[in-house]
Amino acid sequence: MPKTVFVLNGPNLNLLGQRQPEIYGSETLADVQASCAALSAEIGLEMRFEQSNSEGTLVDLIQEARTAADAIVLNPAAYSHTSVAILDALKAFDGPVLEVHISNIHQRESFRHHSYVSLRADGVIAGCGTQGYLLALRRVATLLA
Amino acid sequence: MPKTVFVLNGPNLNLLGQRQPEIYGSETLADVQASCAALSAEIGLEMRFEQSNSEGTLVDLIQEARTAADAIVLNPAAYSHTSVAILDALKAFDGPVLEVHISNIHQRESFRHHSYVSLRADGVIAGCGTQGYLLALRRVATLLA
Amino acid sequence: MPKTVFVLNGPNLNLLGQRQPEIYGSETLADVQASCAALSAEIGLEMRFEQSNSEGTLVDLIQEARTAADAIVLNPAAYSHTSVAILDALKAFDGPVLEVHISNIHQRESFRHHSYVSLRADGVIAGCGTQGYLLALRRVATLLA
Amino acid sequence: MPKTVFVLNGPNLNLLGQRQPEIYGSETLADVQASCAALSAEIGLEMRFEQSNSEGTLVDLIQEARTAADAIVLNPAAYSHTSVAILDALKAFDGPVLEVHISNIHQRESFRHHSYVSLRADGVIAGCGTQGYLLALRRVATLLA
Amino acid sequence: MPKTVFVLNGPNLNLLGQRQPEIYGSETLADVQASCAALSAEIGLEMRFEQSNSEGTLVDLIQEARTAADAIVLNPAAYSHTSVAILDALKAFDGPVLEVHISNIHQRESFRHHSYVSLRADGVIAGCGTQGYLLALRRVATLLA
Amino acid sequence: MPKTVFVLNGPNLNLLGQRQPEIYGSETLADVQASCAALSAEIGLEMRFEQSNSEGTLVDLIQEARTAADAIVLNPAAYSHTSVAILDALKAFDGPVLEVHISNIHQRESFRHHSYVSLRADGVIAGCGTQGYLLALRRVATLLA
Amino acid sequence: MPKTVFVLNGPNLNLLGQRQPEIYGSETLADVQASCAALSAEIGLEMRFEQSNSEGTLVDLIQEARTAADAIVLNPAAYSHTSVAILDALKAFDGPVLEVHISNIHQRESFRHHSYVSLRADGVIAGCGTQGYLLALRRVATLLA
Amino acid sequence: MPKTVFVLNGPNLNLLGQRQPEIYGSETLADVQASCAALSAEIGLEMRFEQSNSEGTLVDLIQEARTAADAIVLNPAAYSHTSVAILDALKAFDGPVLEVHISNIHQRESFRHHSYVSLRADGVIAGCGTQGYLLALRRVATLLA
Amino acid sequence: MPKTVFVLNGPNLNLLGQRQPEIYGSETLADVQASCAALSAEIGLEMRFEQSNSEGTLVDLIQEARTAADAIVLNPAAYSHTSVAILDALKAFDGPVLEVHISNIHQRESFRHHSYVSLRADGVIAGCGTQGYLLALRRVATLLA
Amino acid sequence: MPKTVFVLNGPNLNLLGQRQPEIYGSETLADVQASCAALSAEIGLEMRFEQSNSEGTLVDLIQEARTAADAIVLNPAAYSHTSVAILDALKAFDGPVLEVHISNIHQRESFRHHSYVSLRADGVIAGCGTQGYLLALRRVATLLA
Amino acid sequence: MPKTVFVLNGPNLNLLGQRQPEIYGSETLADVQASCAALSAEIGLEMRFEQSNSEGTLVDLIQEARTAADAIVLNPAAYSHTSVAILDALKAFDGPVLEVHISNIHQRESFRHHSYVSLRADGVIAGCGTQGYLLALRRVATLLA
Amino acid sequence: MPKTVFVLNGPNLNLLGQRQPEIYGSETLADVQASCAALSAEIGLEMRFEQSNSEGTLVDLIQEARTAADAIVLNPAAYSHTSVAILDALKAFDGPVLEVHISNIHQRESFRHHSYVSLRADGVIAGCGTQGYLLALRRVATLLA
Repeated sequence: MPKTVFVLNGPNLNLLGQRQPEIYGSETLADVQASCAALSAEIGLEMRFEQSNSEGTLVDLIQEARTAADAIVLNPAAYSHTSVAILDALKAFDGPVLEVHISNIHQRESFRHHSYVSLRADGVIAGCGTQGYLLALRRVATLLA
Repeated sequence: MPKTVFVLNGPNLNLLGQRQPEIYGSETLADVQASCAALSAEIGLEMRFEQSNSEGTLVDLIQEARTAADAIVLNPAAYSHTSVAILDALKAFDGPVLEVHISNIHQRESFRHHSYVSLRADGVIAGCGTQGYLLALRRVATLLA
Repeated sequence: MPKTVFVLNGPNLNLLGQRQPEIYGSETLADVQASCAALSAEIGLEMRFEQSNSEGTLVDLIQEARTAADAIVLNPAAYSHTSVAILDALKAFDGPVLEVHISNIHQRESFRHHSYVSLRADGVIAGCGTQGYLLALRRVATLLA
Repeated sequence: MPKTVFVLNGPNLNLLGQRQPEIYGSETLADVQASCAALSAEIGLEMRFEQSNSEGTLVDLIQEARTAADAIVLNPAAYSHTSVAILDALKAFDGPVLEVHISNIHQRESFRHHSYVSLRADGVIAGCGTQGYLLALRRVATLLA
Repeated sequence: MPKTVFVLNGPNLNLLGQRQPEIYGSETLADVQASCAALSAEIGLEMRFEQSNSEGTLVDLIQEARTAADAIVLNPAAYSHTSVAILDALKAFDGPVLEVHISNIHQRESFRHHSYVSLRADGVIAGCGTQGYLLALRRVATLLA
Repeated sequence: MPKTVFVLNGPNLNLLGQRQPEIYGSETLADVQASCAALSAEIGLEMRFEQSNSEGTLVDLIQEARTAADAIVLNPAAYSHTSVAILDALKAFDGPVLEVHISNIHQRESFRHHSYVSLRADGVIAGCGTQGYLLALRRVATLLA
Repeated sequence: MPKTVFVLNGPNLNLLGQRQPEIYGSETLADVQASCAALSAEIGLEMRFEQSNSEGTLVDLIQEARTAADAIVLNPAAYSHTSVAILDALKAFDGPVLEVHISNIHQRESFRHHSYVSLRADGVIAGCGTQGYLLALRRVATLLA
Repeated sequence: MPKTVFVLNGPNLNLLGQRQPEIYGSETLADVQASCAALSAEIGLEMRFEQSNSEGTLVDLIQEARTAADAIVLNPAAYSHTSVAILDALKAFDGPVLEVHISNIHQRESFRHHSYVSLRADGVIAGCGTQGYLLALRRVATLLA
Repeated sequence: MPKTVFVLNGPNLNLLGQRQPEIYGSETLADVQASCAALSAEIGLEMRFEQSNSEGTLVDLIQEARTAADAIVLNPAAYSHTSVAILDALKAFDGPVLEVHISNIHQRESFRHHSYVSLRADGVIAGCGTQGYLLALRRVATLLA
Repeated sequence: MPKTVFVLNGPNLNLLGQRQPEIYGSETLADVQASCAALSAEIGLEMRFEQSNSEGTLVDLIQEARTAADAIVLNPAAYSHTSVAILDALKAFDGPVLEVHISNIHQRESFRHHSYVSLRADGVIAGCGTQGYLLALRRVATLLA
Repeated sequence: MPKTVFVLNGPNLNLLGQRQPEIYGSETLADVQASCAALSAEIGLEMRFEQSNSEGTLVDLIQEARTAADAIVLNPAAYSHTSVAILDALKAFDGPVLEVHISNIHQRESFRHHSYVSLRADGVIAGCGTQGYLLALRRVATLLA
Repeated sequence: MPKTVFVLNGPNLNLLGQRQPEIYGSETLADVQASCAALSAEIGLEMRFEQSNSEGTLVDLIQEARTAADAIVLNPAAYSHTSVAILDALKAFDGPVLEVHISNIHQRESFRHHSYVSLRADGVIAGCGTQGYLLALRRVATLLA
């Protein structure tokens, strides 16, 4: 039976490709979703792709993953740095968690250097552009194999 | 006329009994609600019991308490450490506020040692397990007597 | 064609005039809205006035302003100090951003001295009471002229 | 056979009711002792009640509890913030330890926000006035049941 | 009888329009004085406009304002960040104090983020360019009305 | 009726004149007592002079002063830097408290720069050698006059 | 031949008795000068009494003291906390330096807790009101005897 | 013409598979080299694989890469946290740099949370085990394509 | 004439062998005393062995050593981290001081990493179990030889 | 046409050779001026040499240099560490700025380790004694050539 | 079969006896080697004695000890404070590790107070001069017995 | 007999002129060596010029200088900020030490603001480009004269 992965996206990622292209590139979130869908199909994963600007909704989605998913790929965006609630939700999830940042957060403002999510994530991939999602899916496939 | 207390619960507490039982025990939030209801009845308090994963919804509930409740018992969970908005909502509430943490937050990660809610709470009860809710209700009863 | 400005208000500002009048004065948010509407009409600005207790909703409103507004006047209240998500949304907005605080946040608790929003705002007006909104609108009018 | 609890009080608590009544209330330590005795009798606990201004004497009392008591309720007062010796003594005690502060220490000077005792205490109750002792005894009774 | 306001300017503001125009714009201090004079006349304020590079002279001027002025608008420039003497002088002044910064100091070097003057100022206006002086005068007029 | 002052000395001051004379001089504590007695007689104060190496004993003495003394002159020595218990005892004393340090503690190790006692003392005299006691007694006489 | 002492006063002390009387009392600087003159005469000291709001002028006065005075009593006021220049000038002076603060600076804002002048002063007297000047003169007399 | 990538490994990685297998797994560095060689061949990259315990040798290798390689994959191990020299060498390299950590350094001792190398790396992959090398090679292939 | 060494033990060391054996081992303090006595006899030292839970008593013992002992071996336990009074007493002792910690304090809680006693001790021996006392005695013998 | 350099000296440098010769040597400022004049003549620079104890006067001199000088050599002395006003004045100067410290400030008190002036200076020369001025002039000559 | 111990010495210890004799004494490293050899023979240990100025070489030696030695005595000198690589190498060694510092590092510059090596060492001996090596060997003998 | 100076260069300086020319200029290290040789000859100094990427090799060279050189000019590059070993080697050298940085390190990343080498260097020259070496040689010549 195929494994399921939730690919979750935090605040403002719905604007991907429209804001600060010098940092985030010109691909849109729909482009990312398409690439993730293609690779998931190729490597035998079911995928659900969501985005929300709301911390509470992201907590809800992670809680839902507890029964509906085998792994989570999460780009927490701004909530990386401020959300203990998301960290706690992830701690209640038993499967692999991969954290993705499109840009290299260590070269940006100092408040972006710390991520609460990293305290729970199994792996962290930053600065690989939107390819980071695909690398994370490959890692998930390996861990769930 | 009986006094009313709001018992409010923050993010991920809906998972109580299901996640990290070594920290939070095996009782569910429904169990806690039942215990609180029983004790409230015994000591003559009306009680409303709510949980939300959303910071904004918790602010809404606290604002609602301004006219609908005489006291608040609040387990802010992760928002203890990050929410100035909840602190500000509590500052607009005139009655007693009791803060409850199931675990002893002072023995966990350092970012859990500080609580914005404690800057407004009249009393803080931590590390007494789910009995902490009941102790808080007893304190509320005394203060409202 | 007239320019449009969004005047956005963060958590607990719906209680304006009802809580801590020694800090925030006795005017209500409806009073502020009325004053803003009057001045906007006088100086030729279209205005939309919103308040939310939810960080995610405020992010949504700022994103909406990207196409619907020429400028933003924002009183982020408690989220000034904790929300990177709002900062990131503002960074995706191209027009002028004016940050307003009714009280002088530099004379309050130390955690209110830092504002993420100030890292993007063009101008910051604090401690001018609700007149701060009107001063901000005047600045917006100058910048959009 | 009834369980025994030591209720230990740190420096200056012998002045309770006489100093800073706006913080500590007007009850004396003898009043607290009487209330604790009454509740202990009601819930079936033997109780010994002591106060000392000396850190060394408090260490001695805690060491004595190792063989003479099943639980400790401790209001360490000023030594909360400065005594590693008391922490170490408590670490050598196997039963439940409940820490009580009459006032909410998180709203006082910053050096009162940290308690060494909290690093060992099972539960911490602050800001519930002298009722905090009674709540702690109830918790002890549950834990020893 | 008309009210009097002192508009005081700190070190290097005599170079306004000549240095770092990307931060401070191209208006000179004489231009600012003219704009302030015009608005003061319009809203019925007497105005005195001064600049000094010397901390002691600024202290003298603020002391003089105790008897000669009803309000102070102050752009303390570099002394914002280093002068307790100016803060103390302002504390001895009873009327409204408005602090103005032409640039948004929160987006510059970290040592410019803190202002001693803000500890006394009633209102703070930053990042509104030289229009900040005019907004401050409007606030003064309201406060003195 | 003459006023009474307690002159209290903290740990190791019994060695005065014997240890580190380059810091503390060659006078013994008995010499200091004699000088204090002489000046007290001259300016009409009753004086009691005590020294202890024990924090608890110093707390006891300060508590005793609540009914037996009108003022306290205290050289807390090492406990200046570590004792919240002594601070709390002093807070329960209503009369003037003068803190004396023989050496200028601001020129010694950094952990000697902070004194808990200074948070309650009315006056602090440091670096005036043993004459500091006499200056403190003069100040006490003025305050009790 | 009589010894000479300079009594120097820093910024805003010319307002003594007029500003913040709850902190500084109602005596004026002229009153202080008169008291100092009287005591100096009594104990055989020549005295020169000066005040300046300017850091540079205070440096000049301290430099002048190198040849014209045997000791300095200095109330550096705000410059205590910010002036390395005054510290360096004092380091070039060989005689006794007594630092006086009318209020107990350790109970005020945290930026007033540190004094550069204390790094050179032989003695520091704080919180003894304007009597602090007189105590300092007595200490000077002893040191110059 | 095929692109060349240097895969460089820092101190103690020669012990991979032999030390702390609970952190680093049981694969040896030779295993990693073989996997990297296989994937490089598959995706058309020339690869050179080196390890050194010496900071200076790693600097030499990075300098050599300036003319001999198109990209660098670097697991700096302990030198991540202490070597500015390696950072400076990387700054002199123009091609893509991918930083790999086998474990999630954010869940280990706090001194491992900061990496100088991240200040130059284009991408950072941590906590993906030895698969991290392969993910990095895929990213390199994309960037060099 | 044989040299005398005081072997002094701080709070809770009377429980040695009874508490936290995974840190402190199973030897009792009486065992340590016996080993120290045996080695002292072998290497020609007179030894006095004391333990106290009271900071003041330890200060008294160190002061007594000034005339009664040639060297001190001190395991200050919890007071290592909090007692300036013990440091000051040791500073008044002229002979060698050896500080012993049974466990390696650098691998425990961060507040145990700093020792005031180390600021005076000639040598510090940590993490050698109770053999640390014997190593310290050997060092004392060498220094007194 | 010869280039002009201003050599400016901060507070207390007029005492050079008279104070703390172990730090600053025995040469006077007149000696330094003579050496600078000689070298300037030799290498073809016009030189103006000034000293002031006043921060404001130093700001004035730097402003004057904007039109009257091609380069500035500045020994800011104590104002290095405290003056943002001097930094801002230097930022308005377009030519080379060389900062000179006679002593090696990195080996003195920690508050002397940071220099605001270094944030603008092109070069910094410390610890080369008064020869530092001459080295700075040589650098100026090279930069203006 | 005799046990083997590596005695390893970090940078600049080859200069022992030649540099800073007031800190390190006059014995040379050859003297220390001889003493260690003598004691090792006496207590039945094989010993290898090495020194290197290179961090990488020390890592190599520690790695070699994994198969060639039963215990390590290490004086890491300057690398104590800066080398995570040496710490990691030691973590890959299973036997006892004793850390030796000739001087008491806690009384020197603050950057010498922290040792990465102490995070792995079983025991730490500081300030016992070169005798520290011998004490460490005794401890090793006990642990390997 | 001519004096000898070692001119030593730290990591990556062999790339001078090839990397980051906007910071370091276009001169190569060979150019610098030639300039140094020319000036040394002119002012009568023997010179040896070395570069290494290895911290240990730099320590070796400094140790060699103890017998082979009268002075050291050192550009420690990245090791300025991380090497206590180099500091310790320099402390064992008796002659003058001049530290050179080509760029003004105080205007770069904050971790470049602190130099261990400055704790021993007699003089520090930064931001004077490669001319800094020549200025340092002139200073050496003066000190050795």
